Amino acid sequence: MQYSERILKTPSSFIRNILKVTDAEDVISFAGGLPNPISFPIDALRASVDHAITVNGSRLFQYSSTQGYAPLREYIAAKYQRVHGLDVHADDVFITTGSQQALELIGKVLINKGDGIIIEEPGYLGAIQAFTLTEPTFHGVTLENDGLNLEELERALQQPNVKFIYTVPNFQNPTGLTYSKEKREQICEIVAKYDVALIEDDPYGELRFQGEPLPYIGAGKLENSILLGSFSKTVTPGMRLGFIITKNKELLQHIETAKQASDLHTNIFSQYVIYDYLASNDYTEHVKKIIALYKNQSDAMLDAMQEFFPAHVEYTRPEGGMFIWATMKDGTPALDVFNKAMEQKVAFVPGDPFYTSKTNVNTMRLNYTNATPEVIREGIKRLASIL
Amino acid sequence: MQYSERILKTPSSFIRNILKVTDAEDVISFAGGLPNPISFPIDALRASVDHAITVNGSRLFQYSSTQGYAPLREYIAAKYQRVHGLDVHADDVFITTGSQQALELIGKVLINKGDGIIIEEPGYLGAIQAFTLTEPTFHGVTLENDGLNLEELERALQQPNVKFIYTVPNFQNPTGLTYSKEKREQICEIVAKYDVALIEDDPYGELRFQGEPLPYIGAGKLENSILLGSFSKTVTPGMRLGFIITKNKELLQHIETAKQASDLHTNIFSQYVIYDYLASNDYTEHVKKIIALYKNQSDAMLDAMQEFFPAHVEYTRPEGGMFIWATMKDGTPALDVFNKAMEQKVAFVPGDPFYTSKTNVNTMRLNYTNATPEVIREGIKRLASIL
Repeated sequence: MQYSERILKTPSSFIRNILKVTDAEDVISFAGGLPNPISFPIDALRASVDHAITVNGSRLFQYSSTQGYAPLREYIAAKYQRVHGLDVHADDVFITTGSQQALELIGKVLINKGDGIIIEEPGYLGAIQAFTLTEPTFHGVTLENDGLNLEELERALQQPNVKFIYTVPNFQNPTGLTYSKEKREQICEIVAKYDVALIEDDPYGELRFQGEPLPYIGAGKLENSILLGSFSKTVTPGMRLGFIITKNKELLQHIETAKQASDLHTNIFSQYVIYDYLASNDYTEHVKKIIALYKNQSDAMLDAMQEFFPAHVEYTRPEGGMFIWATMKDGTPALDVFNKAMEQKVAFVPGDPFYTSKTNVNTMRLNYTNATPEVIREGIKRLASIL
Repeated sequence: MQYSERILKTPSSFIRNILKVTDAEDVISFAGGLPNPISFPIDALRASVDHAITVNGSRLFQYSSTQGYAPLREYIAAKYQRVHGLDVHADDVFITTGSQQALELIGKVLINKGDGIIIEEPGYLGAIQAFTLTEPTFHGVTLENDGLNLEELERALQQPNVKFIYTVPNFQNPTGLTYSKEKREQICEIVAKYDVALIEDDPYGELRFQGEPLPYIGAGKLENSILLGSFSKTVTPGMRLGFIITKNKELLQHIETAKQASDLHTNIFSQYVIYDYLASNDYTEHVKKIIALYKNQSDAMLDAMQEFFPAHVEYTRPEGGMFIWATMKDGTPALDVFNKAMEQKVAFVPGDPFYTSKTNVNTMRLNYTNATPEVIREGIKRLASIL
């Protein structure tokens, strides 16, 4: 069998492969990116299954519409109106099989082989994978502490056939960094001059445990703004529910065609259940609990780093989300550290898969949401011993 | 915004667009392809939700493996061993977001722009859509009453860069036709001479209400056999669960990479629930009830056609599944009939979207699974009045 060029180019998930090694019982793993399972509202979701079936019967089990369950889209639109002041309506919202599928659909409808995609460097691995299927040219733009490097962004925008910019403005994966208000405004101004879409992927935005929420970069301002959201980090990832918000109707129509061809529609059972959950529970209170949990875990990791890490290892201090990003300023390759760390039974993700143009990097991603403060301290201590 | 060539080429679902017109209350619609909702085992699935959560807790709600829930894959493998005598194991089974996604993933990993795909003419619209995203060259091979035309198949196989053949061997969509035992053997012999994959998409195979089950064309025989199955027609389509069975490990590995990039993994909540349902209920008895239901509906449609249709309209007599295919031997275009039929408040799908190389055809697809025998009779009577 001869396989397609696109699949031969697409990296299999480095992280998923790493997880196979790091999943051993006695390893302390900061490698995953999983929400803490104690944050799942299991009892409430179970009640919502019952209630949704009682009210809607066979409609939970039948084929359904490609754009998604209307009341769920209305709920999402109302929330973005209320919380973010955006002029969005149910027809601007499109439900996807997790926001991973949103990335894949956007690539499909916008990218011809060789077209340009501007991506944060380092950037979200899942996005790199999804976009690679369309065989694009990646233009990496350095992610600084307050957002994209503006000069590099302008230069990248002047490259031929650039279709979109992909950003994670809040508590970015992998770095935990958040774009500043000033950078957001500057980026919006720059992007407005070009015929490109601006994707803001915001799965973590609600999980802010420090500082003030900031307005989006382009949503509500740029004609070709695409906002992505997800229920994976605040309700449940297992049900694979994400969404796209955009006012560009032509784009949404193409996305609908691509979605029909990809999986017809998103699991409608889960759409009914999540909608019922959102309509019947105090979601804000629920999210507050997750925030308190993650703040505690993030504090534990930062405190341990402060105590144990040598001075040549720098790290980010996230205001929310799930990740801390560390840099070995002495240039030690993260892959070397990884191998030694596995001997010490502690794991993380070496930075390499998050770059489209660099290898053997001296950075690493550490997740703090899936271990207790005590275990986090012990893991960081072990890791520090080999840095 | 400039959109990709692939999406501009991909037809949006003709059927889904038609459904918007035909969904009016007073229209008798044979246009859909929906299972009868009374066939969904709602109470048993509801009990399985409860039981699966009680037993497995947060695992239903967390991220999960890309290839799918192991016990579900084991169940499927054991069933194909038992029922079809195939030497398949859990590792040969890969869970997808409905079998629509299986089609899309296979296209992704095998097709470069311009590569050949051999497809039944007429063929399944969802497959045409999914494959079109990879910009292939379609080689249509006439589907005769007993399967593909063998001369056309050989000729198509000799075209450059043909990657696979797509078939629906049992109660095909759209025609309701089933490949004969002889044709299956002849096709297997022919295909064995070429380095191509043979896809057998079999969502309806269990819904046989007449005749004897037949062995697959290539499964268990051809090295590059790909068998597709689904729970959409026998349990519930709303949960979007399909699967791929193949012994080709390299192919499965590429499919895993494509799936990671597409939606990470299939809804794990639904995988636990469907597995629990299968393990806790008499599935065979359940399917028998659907078969009795559909046989009754199929009989009603065939009887009414016999009574009301003019002699120049021929139609297939399916041994199972969900569809009858009618041909206006006087050459009347189905699209003309469709417009007149809508005036009579009866709907069907004109044959056009099922062909990759013909338009304005004189064929139409009629679904009988979603109306009572009385309504079917009335609908066919109305339709006959304009034929």
